[in-house]
Amino acid sequence: MFERVALIGIGLINSSIARVMKRDGLAGEIVIYSRRQSTLEKAMELGLAERAETDAAAAVKDADLVILGVPVGANAALAEAIGPSLMPGAIVTDVGSVKAAVIRDVAPHLPDGVHLVPGHPVAGTEHSGPEAGFADVFQDHWCILTPTEGCDPDAVEKIAEFWRRAGSTIDIMDAAHHDKVLAITSHLPQLIAYNIVGTVLDIEHVTKREVVKYAAGGFRDFTRIAASDPEMWRDVFLNNQEAVLEMLGRFTEDLAVLQRAIRWGDDKALEELFTRTRGIRRDLIDAKQI
Amino acid sequence: MFERVALIGIGLINSSIARVMKRDGLAGEIVIYSRRQSTLEKAMELGLAERAETDAAAAVKDADLVILGVPVGANAALAEAIGPSLMPGAIVTDVGSVKAAVIRDVAPHLPDGVHLVPGHPVAGTEHSGPEAGFADVFQDHWCILTPTEGCDPDAVEKIAEFWRRAGSTIDIMDAAHHDKVLAITSHLPQLIAYNIVGTVLDIEHVTKREVVKYAAGGFRDFTRIAASDPEMWRDVFLNNQEAVLEMLGRFTEDLAVLQRAIRWGDDKALEELFTRTRGIRRDLIDAKQI
Repeated sequence: MFERVALIGIGLINSSIARVMKRDGLAGEIVIYSRRQSTLEKAMELGLAERAETDAAAAVKDADLVILGVPVGANAALAEAIGPSLMPGAIVTDVGSVKAAVIRDVAPHLPDGVHLVPGHPVAGTEHSGPEAGFADVFQDHWCILTPTEGCDPDAVEKIAEFWRRAGSTIDIMDAAHHDKVLAITSHLPQLIAYNIVGTVLDIEHVTKREVVKYAAGGFRDFTRIAASDPEMWRDVFLNNQEAVLEMLGRFTEDLAVLQRAIRWGDDKALEELFTRTRGIRRDLIDAKQI
Repeated sequence: MFERVALIGIGLINSSIARVMKRDGLAGEIVIYSRRQSTLEKAMELGLAERAETDAAAAVKDADLVILGVPVGANAALAEAIGPSLMPGAIVTDVGSVKAAVIRDVAPHLPDGVHLVPGHPVAGTEHSGPEAGFADVFQDHWCILTPTEGCDPDAVEKIAEFWRRAGSTIDIMDAAHHDKVLAITSHLPQLIAYNIVGTVLDIEHVTKREVVKYAAGGFRDFTRIAASDPEMWRDVFLNNQEAVLEMLGRFTEDLAVLQRAIRWGDDKALEELFTRTRGIRRDLIDAKQI
C-alpha cells in the first residue's frame, strides 16, 4: 500500500501500526522516529522498522505516508520540523485523541500538495511504549477520520483502507464534533479515574495496603484507566479544554445532586438513577461494544 | 459443616454460597427465602435448595446457620421477623457491603444464645439474581468479618472456615473501620461510576448511538460498574452515609483543583497527578489483586 512509511513516535499505537504493516506487508519500508534513543533501540530489537532516526526531518524524507503518534502537544513543533522535508503527494495522518488541535497545529506547516488526514483509532490499553503494541489492538474497533474541507478524497480513502485492513470500521466526522463526542466517551471518564485514584492515594486514615487488598470492590477498574500514559493524557486535556470543562461542569452538577440525595436519605432518587444507568450496558452489549 | 442453612435472599451472593455448599457438601439441607415467588422458583429450578419459603421466620426454623443476603436496608425488618424463630446456638451472618448498620439493625432482634458474625465477601459481578451466582466467585478474594466484642470465638471461626472453603482469605476488623475502608475502595468508585453514566445519558448534543459506538475510549468500564443492582447500592449509600459523604467531599475538592489546572493550562500539575496514579497499579499487580 505504501512505499515508505515514517512513524513519528513509536509508542503503543504506532508500534501496533508497524506490526499490522509487517503482518500484512503494507509498507515497503518503515522508518521510525523517537526523541529517545533507547525507545528506538527497543523498537528495532522488536523488528518494527528498517531504519530509526532521532531527527524527524530525516525520518520523513521520501515517505509517502507519515503517521504522527506522539502526545498531541508535541505535534506543532514536529510538524514545523518535518514540513520542509515532506515529499509532494505524501499523506500525513495522526492517531491522537483530539482532532481540532491537531489540524490547528499541523496544517499550517504542511507544504502544498501534502495531504493531512487526521485520524483517531478508538483503541488501546493502559500500557505504553513500543513493547506494549500488538497487531490486533485495532480489530473490531472504530477509527474516526476528520478530514478538513477540500481534503483530497483519494488520500482519505487510502487511510480509511489502511484502517480497514487493521480490522477497524471507519467513521468520518468533523473535528469539532469528534472532540465533543470523545470528551464524553473518553476524556471525562479518564479524568474522573485519575481524580479518584489521586483522592484515594491521599487518604491518611486507611493504609495503602488496605486499599490494595480490597480494590476488587470497584477501585481496581479505575486504577487500570489511571495507569495510562501521563504525557499523552496531559496533552489531551489541554488540547480539548473547552469540551472537557463543559463535561466536567455537568458531572460536578450531577454529583452535587447525588450527594444531596445521600445526605437527605432520598432513596427514590438514588434508585431511579441507579436503575437508569443500568440500561446503557444493555445497549453496549447489543451494539457488540463489549 | 452445617445441618440446616437458611439463605435469606437468593441473589448473586447467596446463590453463589448455595453453589459452594452443594459442591462441597457443607450443608445437610438448604432452605431459601425470598419475598418474590418467581425468584424462589428460579432458584429451585437451578437446584440451589431443598426447600423454599416466602415466610422468613419459617425459613430459619431449626437452622444452625442463617445468612442474610438482601439489600442492607431490609435487614432490620427481616431480623425482627426471624428473631423469635431462631434456634438457640444458631449463627446469623450476612454478606452486606456495610457492617456498622448491619450490627445496629440486626443485633437488637436476636435472642440470647444466637451468635451474630457480620461478614462481607469482597467479591461479585455487576449481575444479579440467583442465575448470576457461581461457586468460584469467592475464589482468591478477601472476606472481611466484623464480630462485635464478646462474640463467641467458635462461631467466628466456623464462619471463617466456611469462607476459607469457598476460596477466600479472612480479615477481621471492627465494623466502623470496615465501613471507612470500603467507602474508599468500593462505595466511592461505585457512586462515581453511577454519576458519570447518568451525566452522559443526559447529554443532548451527542446522540446515545455515538456514546455507545465510542464507549471503548474509557466510558465502557464505568457502564459495567453502573449496571450493578440498584436496590443493593441504594441501601449501601444510605447506610454508610457519613464515610461516603466524607470521601465524596475529598473527591470533589480534588476535582476542583484538577479542573482549575485544565482551565489554566497547568501542564506540570496534570502530569504530576497522572504519573502518581500510575504507581498504584503496580502495587495491585504485586499484591496479585489483578
